[in-house]
Amino acid sequence: MYRTHDCGSLRASDINAEVTLAGWVQKSRDKGFMVWVDLRDRYGITQLIFDEERTDKALLEKAQQLGREFVIQVKGTVIERESKNANIPTGDIEILVKSLEVLSESKTPPFTIEDKTDGGEELRMKYRYLDIRRNPVRENLIFRSQVAMEVRNFLAGRDFVEVETPVLIKSTPEGARDFVVPSRMNEGQFYALPQSPQTFKQLLMVGGLDKYFQIVKCFRDEDLRADRQPEFTQIDCEMSFVEQEDVLNIFEEMTRHLLKKVKNVDVTDFPRMTYREAMEKYGNDKPDIRFGMEFGDISAFAKARDFKIFNEAELVVGIAVPGGASYTRKEIDKLIDWVKRPQVGAMGMVYVKCNEDGSFKSSVDKFYSQEDLAQWAEATGATAGDLICVLSGPADKTRGQLSALRMELAERLGLRDPEVFAPLWVIDFPLLEWDEDTERYHAMHHPFTSPKPEDIDKLSTDPGNVRANAYDLVMNGNEIGGGSVRIFDKQLQALMFDHLGFTPEEARAQFGFLMDAFEYGAPPHAGLAFGFDRLVSILGGQETIRDFIAFPKNNSGRDVMIDAPATIDDEQLKELNLKVTV
Amino acid sequence: MYRTHDCGSLRASDINAEVTLAGWVQKSRDKGFMVWVDLRDRYGITQLIFDEERTDKALLEKAQQLGREFVIQVKGTVIERESKNANIPTGDIEILVKSLEVLSESKTPPFTIEDKTDGGEELRMKYRYLDIRRNPVRENLIFRSQVAMEVRNFLAGRDFVEVETPVLIKSTPEGARDFVVPSRMNEGQFYALPQSPQTFKQLLMVGGLDKYFQIVKCFRDEDLRADRQPEFTQIDCEMSFVEQEDVLNIFEEMTRHLLKKVKNVDVTDFPRMTYREAMEKYGNDKPDIRFGMEFGDISAFAKARDFKIFNEAELVVGIAVPGGASYTRKEIDKLIDWVKRPQVGAMGMVYVKCNEDGSFKSSVDKFYSQEDLAQWAEATGATAGDLICVLSGPADKTRGQLSALRMELAERLGLRDPEVFAPLWVIDFPLLEWDEDTERYHAMHHPFTSPKPEDIDKLSTDPGNVRANAYDLVMNGNEIGGGSVRIFDKQLQALMFDHLGFTPEEARAQFGFLMDAFEYGAPPHAGLAFGFDRLVSILGGQETIRDFIAFPKNNSGRDVMIDAPATIDDEQLKELNLKVTV
Repeated sequence: MYRTHDCGSLRASDINAEVTLAGWVQKSRDKGFMVWVDLRDRYGITQLIFDEERTDKALLEKAQQLGREFVIQVKGTVIERESKNANIPTGDIEILVKSLEVLSESKTPPFTIEDKTDGGEELRMKYRYLDIRRNPVRENLIFRSQVAMEVRNFLAGRDFVEVETPVLIKSTPEGARDFVVPSRMNEGQFYALPQSPQTFKQLLMVGGLDKYFQIVKCFRDEDLRADRQPEFTQIDCEMSFVEQEDVLNIFEEMTRHLLKKVKNVDVTDFPRMTYREAMEKYGNDKPDIRFGMEFGDISAFAKARDFKIFNEAELVVGIAVPGGASYTRKEIDKLIDWVKRPQVGAMGMVYVKCNEDGSFKSSVDKFYSQEDLAQWAEATGATAGDLICVLSGPADKTRGQLSALRMELAERLGLRDPEVFAPLWVIDFPLLEWDEDTERYHAMHHPFTSPKPEDIDKLSTDPGNVRANAYDLVMNGNEIGGGSVRIFDKQLQALMFDHLGFTPEEARAQFGFLMDAFEYGAPPHAGLAFGFDRLVSILGGQETIRDFIAFPKNNSGRDVMIDAPATIDDEQLKELNLKVTV
Repeated sequence: MYRTHDCGSLRASDINAEVTLAGWVQKSRDKGFMVWVDLRDRYGITQLIFDEERTDKALLEKAQQLGREFVIQVKGTVIERESKNANIPTGDIEILVKSLEVLSESKTPPFTIEDKTDGGEELRMKYRYLDIRRNPVRENLIFRSQVAMEVRNFLAGRDFVEVETPVLIKSTPEGARDFVVPSRMNEGQFYALPQSPQTFKQLLMVGGLDKYFQIVKCFRDEDLRADRQPEFTQIDCEMSFVEQEDVLNIFEEMTRHLLKKVKNVDVTDFPRMTYREAMEKYGNDKPDIRFGMEFGDISAFAKARDFKIFNEAELVVGIAVPGGASYTRKEIDKLIDWVKRPQVGAMGMVYVKCNEDGSFKSSVDKFYSQEDLAQWAEATGATAGDLICVLSGPADKTRGQLSALRMELAERLGLRDPEVFAPLWVIDFPLLEWDEDTERYHAMHHPFTSPKPEDIDKLSTDPGNVRANAYDLVMNGNEIGGGSVRIFDKQLQALMFDHLGFTPEEARAQFGFLMDAFEYGAPPHAGLAFGFDRLVSILGGQETIRDFIAFPKNNSGRDVMIDAPATIDDEQLKELNLKVTV
């Protein structure tokens, strides 16, 4: 046995106990006649003491040789500390060491193993095993594990069965790119890694499993945007004999459970908002509702005067920035520059200061009267002291730009408190979205999403306006989950494939097994999947998923620690009947 | 809401309640004036009744049209059943139906959805979603989910952290074949799918995580023996600052916990046996100890007479078959044929009947006296009424043959009771095993396994006799888990790679990251992995893992339901810079 206690557990009540501890040298202070060592493990830090008077000379000298991150084992007596440290749970005691064994030496780490390290992202990733020794990273991983346990406890307690669906499946050209896996035993053929267990969970419902969940790795061979990973984890769920309302209720309850259990936060309010309302009010299908700054459509007022830019715009829309009336000209110019950045793409910005005396000062004073501007203020909810920021142009694009501005301002104003949690259901998503590249409609969620029954007729006449029984769970401006009521009727599914541009043969080749399954008594079913990496990072009060993944990949999909991907042997390629053409 | 109750929940106390149920038509009986329907869901079966007197005509006729596996929703009143069915929990009541809606029709299923079905393996796999509707399959999946929950509860309660390790890793030529995954973003390079998270869990220990576990999919592109799957699930565990004894104790406790929780069985005895002892006593490194029939080495006695076959054999070894003295000559001949089958490979078998009167009758009476045979009986523990079966030849091979015979006879004698659980630790495995093909030593477990310190000197002089700190957990003749104390010293690891025939460059290229990690303070660590599919099937009292996997693959690694693997688009291949050469 390497230890009788871990480094976080000894207290004043243990004084005089003989103990054995093991761990890493966090740091040591050497006064010549006395050496203190902070011994660290996952559970905490315990101070070790060696001194001339009470420690034999060889041992003291050995202690003086210890370097940072050495792994040692010590035996000694728990004694009362002279200068207690109230900041750590073991701060009342220290260990008077009687024997010391170095289990492993360490070279000087490439960065400091401290809460705030001097290591940059790349270095930390290359030596991720050292990065994980740092409290914040380790705590994130432990937190992730706790969230997963609470998810499982909640769902298992409600009769959900965790079923492992296969990882080696079949490639489907729909949607994002699949990773493929050549099969040695089936020459010239490939498996694909799942982008989600969608069809399998639907088959489990056809199989009568009633309530399914799985915390499962999924894969997407996509060009990686900032915070995406080629492999990611979902909480994947599906239920039979339910309607949208049932699904919303249970996952609302689950989210509440998680917030209570892992954050001790009570969230009662789970507002619902249609997709259309979210776009009109926030220009965004995942609005952050921790703060207001809702959009005010001022088109009608703005177009009533002689200002050409507004008169030619499809939409004129503004937000009220709390306290923004005090911004200097320079600050406002910077804001204008910000919205004109290519990432945002606005042509310009009109502003109105709402002065404390009730008057208005705007950049378009020559076109609009004080009464006009008062109407703008009312539409945007601006009050004295606020700044109204107004953008104009094509409706969708302008809303997107104003949404970006709203989020940026909220960030600057400190309105995005990571310890405040504001969930929101966005419902009634469009079933289809137009794809400019392929010039056809794509499924906004996936081809198995059920249209609203009352909108089915529009599939042929007005496909863009068909609403789906689809819903997203949004938290603090992030989509943390999404799902839909599924089609469970073979005819309707065939109709959907047809509208998505599949020939019957293509639909058959790719999803024949699902359509076959629907011929043998499919129950109504619906489901939802949470992005687990995202969920954990939001609950953890951070927005970077990479900080909650033990061994993440970089933006090129590389694991820089193990140096993967890599070339493989010719022998291996030959066995797989493959030739690399680069 | 599709239902107020599920099909397993209504009782006599619900009589007169108005309820809504939904589910599948298990079967219906139509007496013309009266129709009974068994409505089934995951939770049970509830009987529906329609009759001339109480049901309107149109509804009765509708009920008469229902086919097996139709999905229906009914509203009605709970009434007392006239002829109660004590076999099902809902047997006291039935539903007098007032309205019926067919949610989904069903074609006639290709096999019967009953506990014992008429469907063959292949048909059931093709329509696995129907197979899952059958009670035994569904119960296996639910059982698996429960075992996983209990594993997690146990480990989380002991400070183990579940960490997800990456699925897209790097190919290592050592051991079984990796599945590889071409990377589109890194031209000409491949990821590999993990055969186990071995190196990652060791890095987590270097990272100070102290106690790790994961229930995780692993992958092996192997020629599939009968009961293997290309993707399989492990309970993967690792601990720091532990010795072998600590690991054995905690997983003994976990196994006890599982047996108690999921089987309500108390198992106190976890015997330990060295690899050598297991081979000598049972000819097998995973002996089934639910029954005796231990090997008796009778070489000394057998070679003392003039029987050439025995005199030329390295080993003469026997087992006592309880009650076998009553076997007819024909039965014994069949047994001899059985051991001579190529799968077993014995040249023949000598037998001794231990008569009730204390005399012996053997197939080698002309060489051996009654006193000689009495010695054999003592060595094999045979008593009156038993049959001694004796094999001879090269030691290892002969032990293997006798082990096969022992298992076969135990099976025939009903000694392998699936509801009896006999765990066993097999310890002190050899570190290395000789590989005939490559003519060099391979790691018996893997290259990170620590040799016993007292045997390290033998690495150069007598590598085959170096013992490892490696252990297997055996249950009822199956290996359900295995692990080892790991090397945590860079020098020793380099020495191991050297003995395994790696050049320093090869070792560096493949495991450089791990050897680097060992330079920054690696703690002593050890671990273990359970084969989860196997564990669940053994606990479930069955030996076929496929029955406990939702969507298993066949012996060619194919999923016959979704028809994978399959060819992929040329476009997809081009993007991956690949050409198929078949």
